[in-house]
Amino acid sequence: MDYVKFCESVDKLQARFIDRLRDAIEIPSVSSEPGRRADTVKMAHWIKAEMEAFGIQVRLKPLGKEPGTDLDLPPLILGQHGNDPDKPTIMVYSHYDVQPASLQDGWEHDPWTLTESNEVLHGRGTSDDKGPLVNWLNMLEAFQDANQEVPVNLAFFLEGMEENGSVGFRDALEDEANQFLSDVDAVCLTDVAWASNTQPTIPRGLRGVLFYRIAIRGAQEDAHSGLFGGAISEPMTDMVNLMGSLVDPQGKLLIPGVYNAVLEVTDEERESYEKLPLTPEALDGGIGGRLLHAMKAETIISKWRQPSLSLHRIENLKPGPGATTSIPAALVGKFSIRTVPRMEANEVDALVRQHIEARFKQLQSKNELDIDCVHQSDWFYEDVDHWNYQAAIKAIERTWDVTPPITCEGGSIPIALDMKKVLKKNVLLLPVGRPTDGIHSVNEKLDKINYFNAIKVYGLYLEEIAARWQEKRA
Amino acid sequence: MDYVKFCESVDKLQARFIDRLRDAIEIPSVSSEPGRRADTVKMAHWIKAEMEAFGIQVRLKPLGKEPGTDLDLPPLILGQHGNDPDKPTIMVYSHYDVQPASLQDGWEHDPWTLTESNEVLHGRGTSDDKGPLVNWLNMLEAFQDANQEVPVNLAFFLEGMEENGSVGFRDALEDEANQFLSDVDAVCLTDVAWASNTQPTIPRGLRGVLFYRIAIRGAQEDAHSGLFGGAISEPMTDMVNLMGSLVDPQGKLLIPGVYNAVLEVTDEERESYEKLPLTPEALDGGIGGRLLHAMKAETIISKWRQPSLSLHRIENLKPGPGATTSIPAALVGKFSIRTVPRMEANEVDALVRQHIEARFKQLQSKNELDIDCVHQSDWFYEDVDHWNYQAAIKAIERTWDVTPPITCEGGSIPIALDMKKVLKKNVLLLPVGRPTDGIHSVNEKLDKINYFNAIKVYGLYLEEIAARWQEKRA
Repeated sequence: MDYVKFCESVDKLQARFIDRLRDAIEIPSVSSEPGRRADTVKMAHWIKAEMEAFGIQVRLKPLGKEPGTDLDLPPLILGQHGNDPDKPTIMVYSHYDVQPASLQDGWEHDPWTLTESNEVLHGRGTSDDKGPLVNWLNMLEAFQDANQEVPVNLAFFLEGMEENGSVGFRDALEDEANQFLSDVDAVCLTDVAWASNTQPTIPRGLRGVLFYRIAIRGAQEDAHSGLFGGAISEPMTDMVNLMGSLVDPQGKLLIPGVYNAVLEVTDEERESYEKLPLTPEALDGGIGGRLLHAMKAETIISKWRQPSLSLHRIENLKPGPGATTSIPAALVGKFSIRTVPRMEANEVDALVRQHIEARFKQLQSKNELDIDCVHQSDWFYEDVDHWNYQAAIKAIERTWDVTPPITCEGGSIPIALDMKKVLKKNVLLLPVGRPTDGIHSVNEKLDKINYFNAIKVYGLYLEEIAARWQEKRA
Repeated sequence: MDYVKFCESVDKLQARFIDRLRDAIEIPSVSSEPGRRADTVKMAHWIKAEMEAFGIQVRLKPLGKEPGTDLDLPPLILGQHGNDPDKPTIMVYSHYDVQPASLQDGWEHDPWTLTESNEVLHGRGTSDDKGPLVNWLNMLEAFQDANQEVPVNLAFFLEGMEENGSVGFRDALEDEANQFLSDVDAVCLTDVAWASNTQPTIPRGLRGVLFYRIAIRGAQEDAHSGLFGGAISEPMTDMVNLMGSLVDPQGKLLIPGVYNAVLEVTDEERESYEKLPLTPEALDGGIGGRLLHAMKAETIISKWRQPSLSLHRIENLKPGPGATTSIPAALVGKFSIRTVPRMEANEVDALVRQHIEARFKQLQSKNELDIDCVHQSDWFYEDVDHWNYQAAIKAIERTWDVTPPITCEGGSIPIALDMKKVLKKNVLLLPVGRPTDGIHSVNEKLDKINYFNAIKVYGLYLEEIAARWQEKRA
């Protein structure tokens, strides 16, 4: 592969790459909104057509209905590029669905129109994960333009339900493990961001997550607080008691036993965290996040090495706004726990239930409690000495002229662990965007330099893999 | 006045009275929904036209814009019926706006269509307060039909913002005290219900209310709970801590000093409550309300003689749904306190602020707190030996053949206290509906017997007043 020619093509084709991202952003593929399910499916067809233009054999794999609804799940996109038995096969994972977004939420521009300003691309999905996804197509176009052969076989495995629980993904993965994915040698997943805001980093670890809904049901109807206040058992009073018993305002989990399995942070580790090229802005994510800890290492430890528990919402279970001064009859409280090595999701779940049930009993409430763990998955921790990681590190060095520190992520990507468990191959997390990109928030963006340099990183990563593969076979 | 002829006319005109209520219910005059402000104003015009048909001189008194909005406040309806200097003048208060309602909330029938079943009239406003309001027109029609003279002058003072804080009412009341209301001798307010579900009662007391919004603001944007959980100060954690520190699950207020001014319940009082004709259904309000107390007297005491504190909502301050697993950046918590003699609203407010501020300081949060007492009004307690109350007691005895026990209400009607303070006249609370009518809830209803008998009670109440007035003058 001719590195210089490939990179020249990437530079030459920038306008085309921006047009491709613009087209992708314009389809509001919000998987969690039933009214936008059709757009999510439309997105799959758009990607299929784009892929086919590069000679990729594409199949849209249907995943059936979304449980409890009449909605078809967005299909998986299975695409095969190259079939050379002498080349390694890299599975490429990305997702084509996005988080909800609307001007009402406070976006400065229409989230569904790609907006350029000061070398930045704004729009829902620019960073998570449409930019990183279409960059694989951009890379293929650059290879084509430079008259270069793609140095590995690619098995695309693209999902449309990532922002809505990856429903159906695990089953489909198991289904295809010995079929479409049978030749896969390693996995590359681009649904991550740098830990630093100023330079590339590569994460090796992710936190696990357990997501809970606790429902408290009292009277059959919302009650007038004047007529019934003081006389009846109020679900909201129980709810704030339970929610408040889970975590303290300093972020410490209050569930007995929950820290038992957490690995201690060594002094050496703490020192290495203090040295990482993470600015206060990167740690703060650009959101004025009210950091709890003064020391950099403590903030990093709180994100990467400690469990956390966030209270998301307390919502009325009865639809409609209800009266402002009513006593809500039934509520649902939502919270999630992020776990770290070596916490086990099942053990954590048992501790959470024990604690909430015991606490509820103490309240002597007349209401009813339901605890539902909607979703759970374990943390992820990968071997970075593997050729898959080493190729990526080299590709980043060549593109960005800096050695990427190896980091962790506070977030969770359950399907990364699924791929590791099912395929038993190394899973590389290859970041494209920055921690300040505002994914899942308003004004999501991707810096142009990140967008264009990632295309080069992708290409060089494949070249580095091919080189290592040849060495291994020699 | 010929009692028999009047009552015959009431019985004869039942179909007309139901039609009148049907027309009133069909106008969705929800004062708290900006999109229904036009309907609220339309309701005022409908009532004006109905009143003018009975020779009432009507003026719609504009109240200006709703503060902070471009919306006109619904007008006050001022109507004068009769002007005889030899007759007493009774001010009639009622409100023509209603609570929100929609089929989505779980109504069995369209809330804006009067639906008859089993001698019951269903629809939003049947009991609160359109039924009681149009009954004054029904009464005038019965007087007319029976060829009877209305025995007193009536000064109608009807509001369209009662369910939304009675904005503008107090000023307008002060404004008209020496003008339109200068001849008023007593007030009759029909915005109450029986305490018992089986027989009429008359309330003499109401709880006061203080309504609070506490806002907690953290990061500038909602944050991803994976990326930031554990590292930042989360507003929801602070919020459940503050809300949970206000009241315990048994309904006891936890604000230091808040019970100091509450009058002790005597043994005699407790005994009298145990004897009141209140069924468990009436105490429960028909909503399966999960009563905290086993004894009837304790339930009554908790509603009439003790303060209460209800937690209403914890809402995201940023518009839009936000992501399910986000850390909300800013929240508002809503709660209200009901007060009883001799608690002073200002003193209670000072205690609440002291407590919340001290508690927030303990949390060592990085977030910001705002406490806003949106509304406060004191409790109400009236002299029942006054001719105004005695006339009503007699009217109920003659109509229902039972002596109404004198009770209290757990709810608050700030404007009842306003009328008492500004006009310095006796304010009668004359109930029409039952505690199980589901006001402010779904499937609001009014029993036909309550609707029709109230017309007779209204007429006889005016006759009894006239008789007492003559005695007094003689």
